[in-house]
Formats: sequence, C-alpha cells, structure tokens
Amino acid sequence: MSTYIERLGAAAQEAAKELNGLTAEQKNECLFTAAKFLTDGRQEILAANEEDLKRAKEHGMKESMMDRLRLTEERIEDMAEGIRQVAALPDPLGEVTMDIHRPNGLWIRQVRVPIGVIGIIYEARPNVTADAFALCFKTGNAAILRGGSDAIGSNRAITAALRRALVHRGITPEAVNLVEDTSRESAQAMMRLRGGIDLLIPRGGAGLIRSVVENSTVPVIETGSGNCHVYVDKSADLAMATRIIHNAKTQRTSVCNACESLVIHRDIAEEAVPLIVRDLSAAGVEIRGDERVCGLASEAIPATEEDWGTEYLDRIISIKTVCSLEEAVDHINRYNTKHSEAIITEDAEAAAYFLRQVDAACVYVNASTRFTDGFEFGFGAEIGISTQKLHARGPMGLLALTTTKYEIVGNGQIRG
Amino acid sequence: MSTYIERLGAAAQEAAKELNGLTAEQKNECLFTAAKFLTDGRQEILAANEEDLKRAKEHGMKESMMDRLRLTEERIEDMAEGIRQVAALPDPLGEVTMDIHRPNGLWIRQVRVPIGVIGIIYEARPNVTADAFALCFKTGNAAILRGGSDAIGSNRAITAALRRALVHRGITPEAVNLVEDTSRESAQAMMRLRGGIDLLIPRGGAGLIRSVVENSTVPVIETGSGNCHVYVDKSADLAMATRIIHNAKTQRTSVCNACESLVIHRDIAEEAVPLIVRDLSAAGVEIRGDERVCGLASEAIPATEEDWGTEYLDRIISIKTVCSLEEAVDHINRYNTKHSEAIITEDAEAAAYFLRQVDAACVYVNASTRFTDGFEFGFGAEIGISTQKLHARGPMGLLALTTTKYEIVGNGQIRG
Repeated sequence: MSTYIERLGAAAQEAAKELNGLTAEQKNECLFTAAKFLTDGRQEILAANEEDLKRAKEHGMKESMMDRLRLTEERIEDMAEGIRQVAALPDPLGEVTMDIHRPNGLWIRQVRVPIGVIGIIYEARPNVTADAFALCFKTGNAAILRGGSDAIGSNRAITAALRRALVHRGITPEAVNLVEDTSRESAQAMMRLRGGIDLLIPRGGAGLIRSVVENSTVPVIETGSGNCHVYVDKSADLAMATRIIHNAKTQRTSVCNACESLVIHRDIAEEAVPLIVRDLSAAGVEIRGDERVCGLASEAIPATEEDWGTEYLDRIISIKTVCSLEEAVDHINRYNTKHSEAIITEDAEAAAYFLRQVDAACVYVNASTRFTDGFEFGFGAEIGISTQKLHARGPMGLLALTTTKYEIVGNGQIRG
Repeated sequence: MSTYIERLGAAAQEAAKELNGLTAEQKNECLFTAAKFLTDGRQEILAANEEDLKRAKEHGMKESMMDRLRLTEERIEDMAEGIRQVAALPDPLGEVTMDIHRPNGLWIRQVRVPIGVIGIIYEARPNVTADAFALCFKTGNAAILRGGSDAIGSNRAITAALRRALVHRGITPEAVNLVEDTSRESAQAMMRLRGGIDLLIPRGGAGLIRSVVENSTVPVIETGSGNCHVYVDKSADLAMATRIIHNAKTQRTSVCNACESLVIHRDIAEEAVPLIVRDLSAAGVEIRGDERVCGLASEAIPATEEDWGTEYLDRIISIKTVCSLEEAVDHINRYNTKHSEAIITEDAEAAAYFLRQVDAACVYVNASTRFTDGFEFGFGAEIGISTQKLHARGPMGLLALTTTKYEIVGNGQIRG
C-alpha cells in the first residue's frame, strides 16, 4: 500500500513542478476545457454513478447519504459551473505580499506560490472530486484525491474526464490523481507521506479528523467539526433570537455550521426558554436541557455532561442556562470546536466582549451560524472550513492553498 | 509527567484569557518592567548560570556549547535590550485583515488575534527564555518554555525575574511557565497536549525537529534545519561567487543558514572549482566532491550519496558538478531542507528560473544565504526560521505568533 501511495506522491510531485511553470491563462483555459469534458462525459459518469448507487443500496446506505452520492445531469452541470467559477476567480499566485529594500542593497520580496502537492481525504460525495481538482489546479498544486469507497466508480469517471482535459491542453494528467484503493491503509499511507504530500486536508466526520490529527506526520488542516452555540443574552430581542435559532438549528441539520447547543441568560430564561423550546419542538427538534430548562419547558429532557460536547448533526439540541455573559463565554470556550459561535444581544458592550473572548474561527452578533461558508462570505468556492488556528481559519478559498517564498536579489552582498 | 504538563497547560490557558484582555500599552509597559527586573536581578541570574556552567563542565560539555550557555552582565543587558526592542515594535493584534460588507447586510471583518498558548522546546541557550517570552507576551500569548536541562538554573532565575515583573504590573505570572522537568517525557507530554498548547515550536537540531513532527498531535512549526546550497551558474562572476561562498560557509558554521553544499556548472568547473576549493581549504574547510571535483582539486576527497543530504554545521562542504541549470535545481530540490538556497549568476533568465523553481523559504540571487534572519530582513526579533509551508515560512517575527478570527455582525440575518 505505502509503495502505491509513494508512487502517486512521486508522480504528483513531478506534476507540481510542471504546474509551477504554467501561466494563469493556461490554467484557466484548461479549467474551461475540464468543465466542457465533464458535461460531455456525463453519460459515462452517470452510468458509473448508477453502479455506485446500486452497490450502496445493497450495502444498506441511508437515504441522506445516498442523496449525497447521487449524480444527475443537473448536478454534473453544477460541477462544471463550479469549475468555470474557479477559473473566473483572480489568480493569487505571484502576488507580492511584502516588498523590502534593505540598506545594504538587498531587495527582498515575499511572493505567493503554490504549496506543491495537496492530499484530500473525503467521503462519498463525488462533487468534491471536481471542486478539489479545480481549487488545487488553479493554485498551481497537484492533487491526490481519496474519496470514499462508495463513490469510487463515479470518482474514476470524473477524474478520467478531468485528465482528458489536461492531456488535451498538453498538461500532465498527473496534476490530478485518484487513489483507487479506498482502504483504511491508503488513508494511513497518505498521512505518512512526508516529501510526497505537502498538505493534507481531511473532509469528513470527527472520527476521520481525529485519526488524521493523531497519525499524520504530513502538515494538516483540520476542517469541519462544529459544535456551534447560540448564546441568548439577557438583552436579546427574543423574536430575533427565536428566528435565528430556528434557522441555525433546522435549516440543515447535517452540516458543520448548524447550531447544536443553546446558552441562555437566567435573567430572561423564564420568558425565553418556553418560547424557543416551543418553536423548536414544533419543528421536531428534541430538547435536552439543564435543570432550569427542564423546569421551564415540559418538552425538555435532562441533558448529561456528554451533551454539552456533542455535535448531533441531527434534530437534537442542548440548552444550558447561565448567570452571566462571562459564564456563557467560559462554557462555550470549554465545549466548542472553535468553529462558529453566535450571541443574540442588543447590548454593544456584551457583543464586543463576546467577539473578543470567544475562541472560534467565526464569531457572530445577531446572525445565524449557518453563514460560515465560502460562498456566503463572497470568496467563491471553498475547500472546507478550517477549525484550526494555523495557516487558515474559517472558510478556506484559494489563498489557503498557497504559501509564500522570499525572493532575495543582491549584487554580491555578504554578511559582516 | 503528563499530569504536571496538563496542569501547566491549564494554567497557561487561563493566563491566555487574561492576556487577551490587555491593551498594547499595558503589555509594552510590562515588557519594559521585565527588562528592568532582568538587569536588576543579574546577580541572581549570573550565580545560577555559574552553577549551570560548573555542572556542564563536569558533564564534559564542548566549549562551543558552553559559550552558548554562558551569561555575562553584557549578555543579560542584551537580553533586556531585546525585550525593549520587542516592546517598541508595532502591535499586530486587532489589525483588520479583511473588511467585507455583504449584500444581505452582514458585516464581516477578519481580525488579527493571539493564538493562545505557545509551547517552545529549545536547547541550553538561556537567552531564548527571555526572547520567547517577549515575543509571545507582545502577541497576547501565554508561553510554556522547556529549555535544555543544562540551562535549568539560569532559566529558573530568568523566569523568576520575568514573573516578578508580571506580578508588579498586576498581570498573572502564569503568562510565562517554565517546564522544570527537562526529561524527554516532559517534551513528549507537551507534544500531546491538545487543548493545552495551541502551537508548538521546536528550536534545535534535526533530531528534535524530527521527533516533534513524528509525535506531536499539537500543531507544529518546524524550524531551523538547513542544508543550504550555493549554485554557481555558468555565467557567474567567479570573484563574487568565491566571496559569497566563503561568507556563506565560514562566517559562522554552526548556524542553519550556513552553506553546506555547492553545485557548480560543468562549463565553468575547470576555472571555478580550483579557485573556490583553494579559498575554502585555506579557511580550513574540508572538501567532499564528486568525481569531476576531485579531478580538478587535489584537496577534495570523494563525496558519498549521504554527503548530499547532510547538514554538517561544521567546516566541511560538499561540491557537485551539473550539466545544466535544470539539473542544479533538481539536485537542490531533492536534497535541500527548504531553508535557504542561492544562485550566483549574471544571467537574468537563469536567475528568474532559479527563483521560481527552487522550493525553499528563501531563494537568493547573488547574495549569501547567511542573510536569512529576522533582524537582517528588518523584522526585529524572530522566534525562529520556519522551513515548512503552512502558516509561516522563513524568519518568523510577531505575525507568525498570531492568527485571525472572523467577526460577523448582523441585525437578525438568517440563511435562506
């Protein structure tokens, strides 16, 4: 296994050198060709997807997962449109991020450059294959893509179309590499491929992220684990709070920026808890509350310590009451996953304290946590949402897939 | 052991919250106090250092290491001056790095914030204790410092002075924490302290860096391993080449930005090799060359495959000849540690190719690799030189010790 992945890594490193020599125009033209070849190849892709779906059904896959795996003509057109949108984004490469003339005559420029080879481990969502290729290619990086085993046929067909486009444009097809072996071992081998993979991005559940963090010697960006809170301050507009909580919890429950837990100030609990609980219960949400919440709303069942740290990704929410803003912030910083946190308040000082003291990629005042998303931020496509503090934090667009290099030009300078 | 480190981590996390509430003025005043208390406490520090030196001598420490460990009144004054210089640097915190008004009325700002708790593992150089504290504190981070066992007395005395300054200014002394247990286990425990340490920076030899990369689940910035090359192009000014190589190799051999290997174009080897070898030999440098080099200079002994990948940190250099610029770049990218690489050339096209294709933090044209240094770049103090591509690359000043956070302010927005 590790030999197979090592070969892929070596091929991708060679490809990365070639990509580093391409102009923005060459890459954008190739992306447009890739979009075209993807739609042209839709029959082949749909046929492969049909096979994947059949197998998944036999394996008893849930309908919500089947829906993520399923491709249609429209979804293939969406993938192609996504690639064209990436082509239309400004090219970040070559940007001079620092320009220094030193007294000794040295000219130092910090320039934005590709990272090299980016590995991505993801689940059975074939659209990620096209998205990830487009973002990596645009930023001059070769990609090693390891999707879930359930989508292997779809991913093979998509990658074949992308590679035909590369070859058609005279670019090495090894700019995108699909890991055909979708065993646990292939993921492990990617995590250890120092020198072959320069950056590894796991996209998936908490278990995958944990495994990568524990085992990877390759630099990693952690993504997407979201135990997100909404805090209802004592000064909150309760109609607004109810509306935002309803949206953050129920608009889409399976996503990382959905709300999983509420924190409510005791001074308004008597009014707020029944209002919010009634609304959520009517939407089919199970309520797990502390003693105070259970006393105020008969729909609530007692929460355990475990609930505070759980990302349900389901129609369940935990609710805790607190005696102060400070206690709310402490609770959130203790149990959150540093993703997205919101305060509902009419008090500017409380908002400022919350913004400063809550430790998360995205901190909201009077808005739904569901906005943590590259498109909603206006970045265009995103490769994931980073919950770590190094390199990239929050929705990751093209910039997150670049690094910098210092270029220093002299005329014979030596150090005294 | 892990319980002891966990306690330190918990205390540092608490301290980090307090630091996050301080103003730039409060921090700068405290840094000036720390500088004063350090010089005021010099007798105590020198006495502790004397003990460390005595013990080190008994253990048979080499003189070059003893010199790094040794403190004098002047060196303590230098440490204090270093702290005052950090105080004088602009405060990067609070800088708004992105400011977006979305059509739906959301106001999104990306703001520079502290990382939290920074762990630093280093060797027996007590000045790092003061430097690391100053840089971490200025950027609002609490520090957990684990220096080498040989310097434990000196580090204890320095940390005591720094902590007295914190207390004097009404700030928690746990803003700086010295790991008193300098066993291998304490370093290992730091590497696994997720949630307690937000960033771990190893400063030391290749063995330490490798161990941290292999074992750490905490995010790491790799520093300082430098197998740096100078490539002498066929169009090089040989007098300039000789001068730069002499400087890069001999000005200080024990540092990461010293030159360890030369690559010379065959078209000028006949003239260049004897000239350069003669100059280096006269400076007491041992030459290990390929067959061509050995044929051209009797001082050279044959290099082995291992030599190309070795960071000598000593008066030894390897020399390889190549048939082309492309071969030179391939050789460098294969064996380098992504630190600092130089080309000597009068050919602008060759320079441009080298700058673009060599994969390293710092790439030089016609200058010595010895300039890779925060002070030489004009950044002021540095915490180390990153050889990785994520987060920070090259000399790391204050910015490398910060992260960002998105602050999003709305008036009730929900996602449709």
